[in-house]
Amino acid sequence: MRLASFRAAGKDRIGISPDGASLIELSGPRSILELIETGSGILPSREQFSVHEATFHPPVRRPSKICCLALNNSANSDRILQGPKHPAMFIKPASSLVGHGGAIECKAHYGRVHPEPELAVVIGKMAKNIAARDAYDYVFGYTIHNDITSPTMRAEDTFHYRAIHPKAGDPKAIEYVDTWVSYPGRYKCCDTFACMGPWLVTKDDIADPHILSVSCSHKDQLVTEDNTENLFYKIPEVLEFLSSHLTLLPGDIVSMGTALKKSAQGGAVQNIDLNKLGGPVSVTIEKIGTLTNDVVHV
Amino acid sequence: MRLASFRAAGKDRIGISPDGASLIELSGPRSILELIETGSGILPSREQFSVHEATFHPPVRRPSKICCLALNNSANSDRILQGPKHPAMFIKPASSLVGHGGAIECKAHYGRVHPEPELAVVIGKMAKNIAARDAYDYVFGYTIHNDITSPTMRAEDTFHYRAIHPKAGDPKAIEYVDTWVSYPGRYKCCDTFACMGPWLVTKDDIADPHILSVSCSHKDQLVTEDNTENLFYKIPEVLEFLSSHLTLLPGDIVSMGTALKKSAQGGAVQNIDLNKLGGPVSVTIEKIGTLTNDVVHV
Repeated sequence: MRLASFRAAGKDRIGISPDGASLIELSGPRSILELIETGSGILPSREQFSVHEATFHPPVRRPSKICCLALNNSANSDRILQGPKHPAMFIKPASSLVGHGGAIECKAHYGRVHPEPELAVVIGKMAKNIAARDAYDYVFGYTIHNDITSPTMRAEDTFHYRAIHPKAGDPKAIEYVDTWVSYPGRYKCCDTFACMGPWLVTKDDIADPHILSVSCSHKDQLVTEDNTENLFYKIPEVLEFLSSHLTLLPGDIVSMGTALKKSAQGGAVQNIDLNKLGGPVSVTIEKIGTLTNDVVHV
Repeated sequence: MRLASFRAAGKDRIGISPDGASLIELSGPRSILELIETGSGILPSREQFSVHEATFHPPVRRPSKICCLALNNSANSDRILQGPKHPAMFIKPASSLVGHGGAIECKAHYGRVHPEPELAVVIGKMAKNIAARDAYDYVFGYTIHNDITSPTMRAEDTFHYRAIHPKAGDPKAIEYVDTWVSYPGRYKCCDTFACMGPWLVTKDDIADPHILSVSCSHKDQLVTEDNTENLFYKIPEVLEFLSSHLTLLPGDIVSMGTALKKSAQGGAVQNIDLNKLGGPVSVTIEKIGTLTNDVVHV
């Protein structure tokens, strides 16, 4: 089932699309989050729209959190000099979301801004301390996340500092340890830096989420050609690991990390400076759809 | 006005406390978030409880985000070798919240876990691109945040890696740049790592939020004695800066950064390993109250 949140004829709605071209409104729950939370019966209404009449919202408009995996592509391995032996993650807020067809807002001082194409998992029910073997029981479906990133702001918001630690051998005294720390509150979390949608495809439509081709195009150029099989940590172990630290709630998003294998003719996603080059930028994932966003300077 | 979210006599409620000892239930809005969002008239009901009959929830139970400032104390200046010339920030999710009296959940593999006492601002209305001079118009009130932190997980989730950048002089090619990056998804965001409350004090009760004493106690030892005047970036410039990047929504929390000046007899907060030493740990902020939490090993 292919679900969407959208606005048409002056009203916010949710709907299903049998063909990716038309939208049949659903009555009952007022939002996809409510549909996920209540699991309540959904009824198609009589209202039908063409996708061209619709303004897409992100499928889940106000998830309690968007958990984003970092450096989770097997292609990264030879670039990591030192790093954890488990998934690493940061949080994006709901305010960073923008739907399919919406514009990525860039300001001059953001510096470089690039796309990152990602498979996103939508959580179906509360998950705390779950086992990998049960993980798919907690999945509602899948969508597409373009995890917009500013490496300029990342560099600016990185500190080299002397962290305070308990002194070795004397835990009541302190010592300073030379440390690097970076904060993703701007470079990952600005308004519109989480492009998401257009569709939420329920899990019954995707037997194996780890054999899906992923591509990213900028203007008419194919930039990325990858596959979700290249994600280093897969969905079951990721949900087990995350849920052993923080409770995943219905409607939460777990974004699986960047598909970054270059296309034959393209550069890297890091070469696509959206702030300089503008849009549109599209991410396509097999069996889910295509998410396209333009760029505006604000 | 001193507001709280709490459970008493088998029911979740919101209330006001005229004296910090009793709670008078409010009827009308079902949550403090709804009260903030709708600004609707509140009516005291006939139900009254002692604080000892109440289990405190965090004042805002599901904020869309908790924005936390990093290294925002003037005492940090001489420890920062390199860093931004503006506030740096990360996001904590609502799932990390626990109320006054709740327990901080520690697991053995979390390693060191320490408290960080912080003044937290509760946003009253949507703020995007606001000016510093108008900032207090967007403030609803203040609460206390104990920003629980695991430096062990911070170290584990720090990567030393070769980042992909466009090549200098040839933006279609790439080059590798030796980089450090750290991800706060675990070390700041585990369940119960955002202790908050017990009170949300509305802004009319606090003429100047930057002259408030802040202290942190562990068991019977006074650890921190600081004052909100020592925050490096103050509320007006912080809200201007944040809102120029991301939209602040009603009920969102902006946590102003750690008060870390040591008490005369104490060590640093970093010496208080809650995972090893247990609790309780308390944060007191003048005119707001005292937030106390114990520790459980799970």
